[in-house]
Amino acid sequence: MDAEIILGWKISQADELLKSTKLKWVQSKSAGVDYFPLTEFAKRKIKLTTASGLHSRYIAETVAAYLLMENRGLRPVIKNPGVWDEPEVYETSEQTALIFGTGNIGKEIARYCHFFGMKTIGVNRHGMDNSLVTDFDEVISIAEFESAKDKYVADYVINIMPGTRATNGFFNRERMEKIDSGYSFINVGRGTSVVTSDLKKLLADNYIKSAYLDVFEEEPLNPDSSLWHSSKIIATPHISGLMAHFKDNFLPLFDDNLEKYLANEELHNLVDLSTGY
Amino acid sequence: MDAEIILGWKISQADELLKSTKLKWVQSKSAGVDYFPLTEFAKRKIKLTTASGLHSRYIAETVAAYLLMENRGLRPVIKNPGVWDEPEVYETSEQTALIFGTGNIGKEIARYCHFFGMKTIGVNRHGMDNSLVTDFDEVISIAEFESAKDKYVADYVINIMPGTRATNGFFNRERMEKIDSGYSFINVGRGTSVVTSDLKKLLADNYIKSAYLDVFEEEPLNPDSSLWHSSKIIATPHISGLMAHFKDNFLPLFDDNLEKYLANEELHNLVDLSTGY
Repeated sequence: MDAEIILGWKISQADELLKSTKLKWVQSKSAGVDYFPLTEFAKRKIKLTTASGLHSRYIAETVAAYLLMENRGLRPVIKNPGVWDEPEVYETSEQTALIFGTGNIGKEIARYCHFFGMKTIGVNRHGMDNSLVTDFDEVISIAEFESAKDKYVADYVINIMPGTRATNGFFNRERMEKIDSGYSFINVGRGTSVVTSDLKKLLADNYIKSAYLDVFEEEPLNPDSSLWHSSKIIATPHISGLMAHFKDNFLPLFDDNLEKYLANEELHNLVDLSTGY
Repeated sequence: MDAEIILGWKISQADELLKSTKLKWVQSKSAGVDYFPLTEFAKRKIKLTTASGLHSRYIAETVAAYLLMENRGLRPVIKNPGVWDEPEVYETSEQTALIFGTGNIGKEIARYCHFFGMKTIGVNRHGMDNSLVTDFDEVISIAEFESAKDKYVADYVINIMPGTRATNGFFNRERMEKIDSGYSFINVGRGTSVVTSDLKKLLADNYIKSAYLDVFEEEPLNPDSSLWHSSKIIATPHISGLMAHFKDNFLPLFDDNLEKYLANEELHNLVDLSTGY
């Protein structure tokens, strides 16, 4: 094949796809692009655009489902059906969500949390800006988070950061302990951002109360993994952003970008190949 | 004992409690009062007030958890952990909730559904009124529902009607088939409103897609019941209205009613003993 534009990408076909010597632009169907050969793209000046924004509401709905399941005591009930006991429930309107990643998806998650009456704190590379004031009560930079002397207090720690060199292994024991004990951990970003063995230890020690994991260091997750079967964990198979009508949602984005491409205008959702998102 | 006012009620102690010859007023801690001896109360002119309004947000959160679990494909995944397959997901913003019961709880459920982008149709005894226009796009009366020739179309059928003689066995096969096939059934009202054998048949026939049941004809639900273990059903042990800080929420309501009682004013949330709610 000798395409100039590719819509979509498959890791298993990457070598074949990269044979297109005229390749100028790849439009990804996903928001995350960590599975692309970014160095090769940079070397060959191939433009890469994401589907960022498309999945936001769906991922926010999934996070909302996790969060309300936890607060309404549904996790222990569903994990152990048949027991007629009152589970612990939690007062959503008193809670704080600490959201790592304040892009389209993080903002939408914060909007849902706000509707539920929660306080929202964002964590990103640069701190608060005008685009974030509506959805976040507070935004701190990663640097502030790293250097804080007191522990942060949150009921939910939600990861939606992209998978990059900078976020690889970010949630290790040290960083997860920078937040006071008793929180639930939600990962709808990338499995590679979490040191799974550290997360398991913190769950076993009851430092972290529960975890809702949609992404894993290794995917697909082994059917025998304790992550599937622990009563403290709800695991789902990388589905948080699935949508019922993908094409209907995706094609307008591609059409718009195609027009821009043909008119030689700057593309929407263009990836900075040096940072990887 | 010889109390004039009783706060709370226990079925197992009803005989004892009714010995109080001076008993004038009972303030229930629950919204539903179908477990009270209403005829006896009427005969003796004992006033009964409910905790209606207190549980609304919590029940709405539980319904929201059910609904988003279903739409995000979480039910089959959690019911069968270990399988790395994409489940069916559903587009919330295209959906309709048919909500039976438009009191405090029904309205709050509708408010959540609206936030999620859904269309909300209420069903009650009298149809639309001014207090309902914000949360419901449409309200029909039970009589209209009963007499409609075409099937109603809804993605979620949510029952929050009180347990009364009028609602006993309401959701039988005939009425559940007045709504077009493919919907999910949510019951956070009373188990007695549903003919469980009919519901089971409609689920087995795939007429009803799934069910989220918090209340049952017989409670506690038998640990071996298929309602706990079917992959089409999420069953929870009558917990939809549980709250983390019940006293903090309840005491202001009681204080307020106590003042009214002492001043001989009309009590808040007074039950009409003839209709039972």
